[in-house]
Amino acid sequence: MQEIHQKFFQDLLGVQNAHFDPIHKRAYSYDATKKHYLPDGVLFPRDENDISQILKYCNENKIIVIPRGSGSGFTGGSLAVNGGVVLSFEKHMNKILEIDLENLVAVVQPGVINMALQEKVKEYGLFYPPDPASMEYSSLGGNVGENAGGMRAAKYGITKDYVMALRAVLPNGEIIRAGKKTIKDVAGYNLAGILIASEGSLAVLSEITLKLVALPKFKKTAMGIFNSIDDAMNAVYKTLAKGVTPVSMEFLDQLSIQALEQKFQKGLPMDAGAILIADVDGNVEEAIEADLKILQESFYESKVREFKIAKDEQEAADIWFARRNCSQSIAMYGNLKLNEDITVPRSKLPELLKGIAEISKKYSFKIPCFGHTGDGNVHTNVMVSDKNNPELVKKGYEAVEEVFKLTVSLGGTLSGEHGIGISKAPFMRLAFSEAEMELMRNIKKAFDPNNILNPFKMGL
Amino acid sequence: MQEIHQKFFQDLLGVQNAHFDPIHKRAYSYDATKKHYLPDGVLFPRDENDISQILKYCNENKIIVIPRGSGSGFTGGSLAVNGGVVLSFEKHMNKILEIDLENLVAVVQPGVINMALQEKVKEYGLFYPPDPASMEYSSLGGNVGENAGGMRAAKYGITKDYVMALRAVLPNGEIIRAGKKTIKDVAGYNLAGILIASEGSLAVLSEITLKLVALPKFKKTAMGIFNSIDDAMNAVYKTLAKGVTPVSMEFLDQLSIQALEQKFQKGLPMDAGAILIADVDGNVEEAIEADLKILQESFYESKVREFKIAKDEQEAADIWFARRNCSQSIAMYGNLKLNEDITVPRSKLPELLKGIAEISKKYSFKIPCFGHTGDGNVHTNVMVSDKNNPELVKKGYEAVEEVFKLTVSLGGTLSGEHGIGISKAPFMRLAFSEAEMELMRNIKKAFDPNNILNPFKMGL
Repeated sequence: MQEIHQKFFQDLLGVQNAHFDPIHKRAYSYDATKKHYLPDGVLFPRDENDISQILKYCNENKIIVIPRGSGSGFTGGSLAVNGGVVLSFEKHMNKILEIDLENLVAVVQPGVINMALQEKVKEYGLFYPPDPASMEYSSLGGNVGENAGGMRAAKYGITKDYVMALRAVLPNGEIIRAGKKTIKDVAGYNLAGILIASEGSLAVLSEITLKLVALPKFKKTAMGIFNSIDDAMNAVYKTLAKGVTPVSMEFLDQLSIQALEQKFQKGLPMDAGAILIADVDGNVEEAIEADLKILQESFYESKVREFKIAKDEQEAADIWFARRNCSQSIAMYGNLKLNEDITVPRSKLPELLKGIAEISKKYSFKIPCFGHTGDGNVHTNVMVSDKNNPELVKKGYEAVEEVFKLTVSLGGTLSGEHGIGISKAPFMRLAFSEAEMELMRNIKKAFDPNNILNPFKMGL
Repeated sequence: MQEIHQKFFQDLLGVQNAHFDPIHKRAYSYDATKKHYLPDGVLFPRDENDISQILKYCNENKIIVIPRGSGSGFTGGSLAVNGGVVLSFEKHMNKILEIDLENLVAVVQPGVINMALQEKVKEYGLFYPPDPASMEYSSLGGNVGENAGGMRAAKYGITKDYVMALRAVLPNGEIIRAGKKTIKDVAGYNLAGILIASEGSLAVLSEITLKLVALPKFKKTAMGIFNSIDDAMNAVYKTLAKGVTPVSMEFLDQLSIQALEQKFQKGLPMDAGAILIADVDGNVEEAIEADLKILQESFYESKVREFKIAKDEQEAADIWFARRNCSQSIAMYGNLKLNEDITVPRSKLPELLKGIAEISKKYSFKIPCFGHTGDGNVHTNVMVSDKNNPELVKKGYEAVEEVFKLTVSLGGTLSGEHGIGISKAPFMRLAFSEAEMELMRNIKKAFDPNNILNPFKMGL
């Protein structure tokens, strides 16, 4: 980066907030993809005005800007693949500005960690439901940029369902407000709607207003073991159709169950086709009991072979142990895990899983699957036995592409939670027409005519 | 309209679907604003392909296109203020295409009436919650275009919370798909998000996929009479903070109560400051009883002077009679009603209503208010005593402008439900900066470079 630019940033932010040394660049060069791209600099804006000044300067000088959360993304959204300066909010813009008890909203800066907000609002008996697996370290700015999901989506929805308002800075330095602290607001275009999930490519978020709900007083956990995926999916459908929406309804397939049992010997049946784990919550014990009764009925009508309701927190933790340890257990099937977060309409889950079994057979890879049946979001894992065998790795990616094709053919999406970034960019053409891609490029131009904000991500 | 254009449309659609006679033009010239603007033609597309052909032709020939729902809008969104052809979906594109029981979604054409969908899904024990007051005649295409709200928003949200996917036609004739039949979908920009509430100015909707929920089995109605608005608002806050979210929580102010009592003599206390009416629903009677108990506690803690839970449907209907007849009762205060649907953060309702009382005094207009406290949406009615007195009418609009200014100063929005259209366009500058307006114009250009789709609405 030219010295004149470095000097501008250091004059603006102070030398302690504008870094161009190898160590800082290295520290902000990677994300959960484990890929590395060195940025040209790392900036820590202190406030919205700093962001505005930085963007104005970068826009005039055609310097790429990469807004970055915690770098926990799975698709490279925050990687400086074309250089540029990384904007990090973790040093200064990491404050919870307001917990507004009357309107049940929180106002936060983008660098606040998801869990920090959850913990804070809990003190007031409130609840911020979106719970990406990264919630202990991912930032709310990143969550909004990627529209993060989580296990509680079936009942509580995802990040976009909680964003009430945003403040953001456009590439030209102008500050815009989008949305209000109100459920209803239909004045002008839904700017917040398009900023969510835009992967930092349209504007830089400077303030986020999030909806809170009352923290449910009670929660119960149930588990069902099924002979087949079809039976399990039938149980999911029946439960929902009878008006019970569990907080989460997670499934493990046979390969996942077998891997878990081999690793931990918890007595899971090796011949089971699927396990469902469901949490039900609410404020009234009678209502939870009623919900559990309906859930139990639905499971029995779907030929569950073993059904259990946890009597206490310990039993609930035991049940959840299986789901929480899925990801590490399946490592036994290969040392390279190509994991994707495809999502299909719930009704298509059996067909999806059958198709994946065929792909598994065709390519001779184990492909264990687990995830969120309540919302059709499946974590598929193409397990490549030897990551040092380039031919095998190539075949692995071919299998992934087939999984994507199958998903799209079933009305599903390339990504339920992780976004597109660079990892899934090559697959965008499977899911979007040229007209749709062109429209997205035009929207990008409307916000960012010089293409300085996280450019060339999402296949745009 | 030039004959060559008329001929193109008649050749494409058949003469029975392309009308240029005065009667058709007149019939499609107005909406609920009671303003009239004659379009140059009225077209009834039979399918998405027709829409595509029409738009392509109009784009090439710079002919304005106005997509129209049922013409029940309050802000002129569907008025042909600059001529052009009206596209109406009420003749052909009015089918419910699918009720997908497994995924709990409905797929509809834009011309389907809101209530028709509600009735249809009820047969399956399902529920489509958005309930604009126009639901018996407004179309779902119009509902999405305006992001319609309703009384059930406090618990169930508004139209945007139910739109899962859209098909739409761009001005260049290209068909795009936005969203999926899945709760989670984070691939590409949130195109559905920006199309919702865009008042037909970005693309023409051709198919709408809506989320359904299970129809709650039970509903109960409660009413509280309060000495002051502050007490009533306090009761709303306490109820919500304790984790009970009524389906709706409606309020009437003192002027509304007095008008109702004078007209109907139902025994409402003329000195009461406010009435709250709340519906609570659920699948489990014990849970509803528990919710009602919390609601009752909250009301008593907020000094309710009379509290009642309806014992049966008749009593519930009696309670709701007051709210339903508000709008017509207040006619006693003037023969011109300037009604707006402003919305503020719930906590600001007392301040808003105090400010409105001051504006009322300053201008010597009665301004009765009622509406949805659960979501901060207030229907304010500046009552002008003589609509034939131009000076008085002018003063009325000045009072309205002051109401808007007050609303914006309290962090509120010009419109909670009705949109901007032409009626509120002059007030956009009160709520949006030039940078925000410019961004919206750029977004419009990204979709519609020739500005043929419902141009010059929303102050753009």
